[in-house]
Amino acid sequence: MEKVLASIITIGDELLIGQTVDTNSAWIAQRLNAMGIWVHRRVAVGDQRDAIWKALDDECALSSIVLVTGGLGPTADDITKPLLAEYFGGKLVVDERVLAHVQYLFEKVFRRPGPMLERNLKQAEVPDVCTVLFNRIGTAPGMWFERNGTVVVSMPGVPAEMKGLMTDEVLPRLQQHFKTPIIAHRTVFTIGMGESMIAERLTGFEAGLPDTVKLAYLPHFGTVRLRLTATGEGQDIDGLFATLCALVKDITVVAEDISLEAYIGRLLLEKGKTLATAESCTGGMLAEMLTSIPGSSRYFLGSVVSYSTSVKETLLGVDASGGVYNEATVTQMVKGVLEQIPADYAIATSGIVGPDGGSEETPVGTVWVAVGTKTRISAKVFHFRWDRGINTQLAAMNALNNLRLFVLEN
Amino acid sequence: MEKVLASIITIGDELLIGQTVDTNSAWIAQRLNAMGIWVHRRVAVGDQRDAIWKALDDECALSSIVLVTGGLGPTADDITKPLLAEYFGGKLVVDERVLAHVQYLFEKVFRRPGPMLERNLKQAEVPDVCTVLFNRIGTAPGMWFERNGTVVVSMPGVPAEMKGLMTDEVLPRLQQHFKTPIIAHRTVFTIGMGESMIAERLTGFEAGLPDTVKLAYLPHFGTVRLRLTATGEGQDIDGLFATLCALVKDITVVAEDISLEAYIGRLLLEKGKTLATAESCTGGMLAEMLTSIPGSSRYFLGSVVSYSTSVKETLLGVDASGGVYNEATVTQMVKGVLEQIPADYAIATSGIVGPDGGSEETPVGTVWVAVGTKTRISAKVFHFRWDRGINTQLAAMNALNNLRLFVLEN
Repeated sequence: MEKVLASIITIGDELLIGQTVDTNSAWIAQRLNAMGIWVHRRVAVGDQRDAIWKALDDECALSSIVLVTGGLGPTADDITKPLLAEYFGGKLVVDERVLAHVQYLFEKVFRRPGPMLERNLKQAEVPDVCTVLFNRIGTAPGMWFERNGTVVVSMPGVPAEMKGLMTDEVLPRLQQHFKTPIIAHRTVFTIGMGESMIAERLTGFEAGLPDTVKLAYLPHFGTVRLRLTATGEGQDIDGLFATLCALVKDITVVAEDISLEAYIGRLLLEKGKTLATAESCTGGMLAEMLTSIPGSSRYFLGSVVSYSTSVKETLLGVDASGGVYNEATVTQMVKGVLEQIPADYAIATSGIVGPDGGSEETPVGTVWVAVGTKTRISAKVFHFRWDRGINTQLAAMNALNNLRLFVLEN
Repeated sequence: MEKVLASIITIGDELLIGQTVDTNSAWIAQRLNAMGIWVHRRVAVGDQRDAIWKALDDECALSSIVLVTGGLGPTADDITKPLLAEYFGGKLVVDERVLAHVQYLFEKVFRRPGPMLERNLKQAEVPDVCTVLFNRIGTAPGMWFERNGTVVVSMPGVPAEMKGLMTDEVLPRLQQHFKTPIIAHRTVFTIGMGESMIAERLTGFEAGLPDTVKLAYLPHFGTVRLRLTATGEGQDIDGLFATLCALVKDITVVAEDISLEAYIGRLLLEKGKTLATAESCTGGMLAEMLTSIPGSSRYFLGSVVSYSTSVKETLLGVDASGGVYNEATVTQMVKGVLEQIPADYAIATSGIVGPDGGSEETPVGTVWVAVGTKTRISAKVFHFRWDRGINTQLAAMNALNNLRLFVLEN
């Protein structure tokens, strides 16, 4: 069975000038991949006729599926829709269902006073050579074109609108349209060992893999996901995965593709325990990561972000006379926050993430982390070498991992 | 003067399978753009020989500068370096300076016990047809190739390493190598009006712009940046920008390209005032946004993330008998956090960001925000219609904007 290949084209000067980070492509690729469609190219071009036309020509020649996002907004810098009409040999006509939906959104949802703008009415125009895909939450519809066996789908670039269209319309239609091969993934999530050390350990395993099974290393802030991908049928991916898991047992968090914060949530729910955080250098990032998980209110009670020394002293009872970047401070922060918030476990962080504030004894990148309960607390120091953003992420990730180990042992 | 065109090629299955979001490209594009180099295409391909080779062929034909990131790690799924040697007609040889640096990193920085791994030593190999670019913080060097007037630079995909190489080596060399045209940007940051309404207001202005000046709309969680870009010399961009600013005066935050959290930091520093937050539905995101700014400890004291109702009651003195999604709760949260943390201003949030937890009277997306001082508090309710992540971002952004307006008025 042949592989079904897809390309993603993203349109918009804002992507090329670097003012927007493209998160859509990763989301789309994940969904297609799960269906056995392989995204082999992603191309970004600006709001320019020639560049868009060439990208369509190129990708239609290389792929059976071309998904286009962006370039459909109501403002004048968007030129994609008339270009698609011309490219596929049609003309723009008003779609009555889309028009009614745009009017509904303006009157009932956005509650805009006064008559609709001409440029918003224009959003109800579609090329007469496409199948219109209904966009529940926005004014710009999706458009499905077919030519010479290739499917081209155009969607707005707003992430929520693109995701709604993909889920409601595009993915089910692609599933019907293409016979896709089976692609299976198995992922094990590790922490505490670098990519090269793991690779050294897995040299023999990797050399023995059949051609149709690939091993990938996916590092992310001190964690590494090991992913096996098998294409086609008849692979013993589960047997290979069991071997892989046995080889990395000592550094495994869980044999699943899951985030550390989601895993910790599950662990706390299973044990019926609750958590609080006392954050200095992570500045609320731990709380934000933990509460990004739906349902986290069942185990996460809250946080004291004690960014200033005075808040550490008054609210958490820290004795800061010996400085705040040390074991005593984070230990007192754990105790202090458990006095204020009646959780079973707490995490505390204090350190210098940069760019300034370091000293000879305590250089930038020094971070103390403590985890524990009212009666037992374990502290550890880390030395990170990167910029403010990465040092903060590494501090948060290592703090969550220390909590994981503590909860498993206590 | 001719425009200098650049392409970015990102290599790695992890980008195509959607396991990693590409943040490098946006950073690179920003830096090149500021120098007058226009990134007109970005292409992502997997760790596959044919795909990489074709991408090099295509982009070298279209651009004077081709920047390649990724595919240089120490693990077996990285095939880029031998391919580049072959592509440019060279062979791999050990570079003594890189070798010494790799050894230094392993012994002194990573402090790995035991001898270095063969695969790490291999990172000191480079094609003998390139200029080696020194990577301060990582083991994989950058490589600069030239052929037929096109410059191809290969860098590792790890963001901190890529950024270091670009800043230290690639940008200064590109500046020397190419005569670049002048590209000027002027950005005004607005809040409180949608993209289409602004565009309607600016129809006449936009129609009157010369061909060499473009206006772009960059929406981001309830804010819109309006960016004028002029190419070439002799444009009165400052005059046009002054006209634009006058047209959007009522919705302007500041006539600069700056984040809302950075702007608020500057405002507080100017006034010599401090800030605390009391967060329920934003779950620490406000604190995290505020502390992401270097130097924020001069005005941000801390936060109480009162995710559970009991923490709202005990730590912030909220009377939750009438529920927690209302004006009384957020008003009491502002008062309560200012009792605990001696700041001048506070922000409080409480609401339902989803996906569950809504009711008939208080549907998902209802968020109350209060801002104020000990003596004067202003509260407002919002109704967001998106998913958990976006609703939380919108809540945080609107809360910061309400604080901005309050501080300017009080």
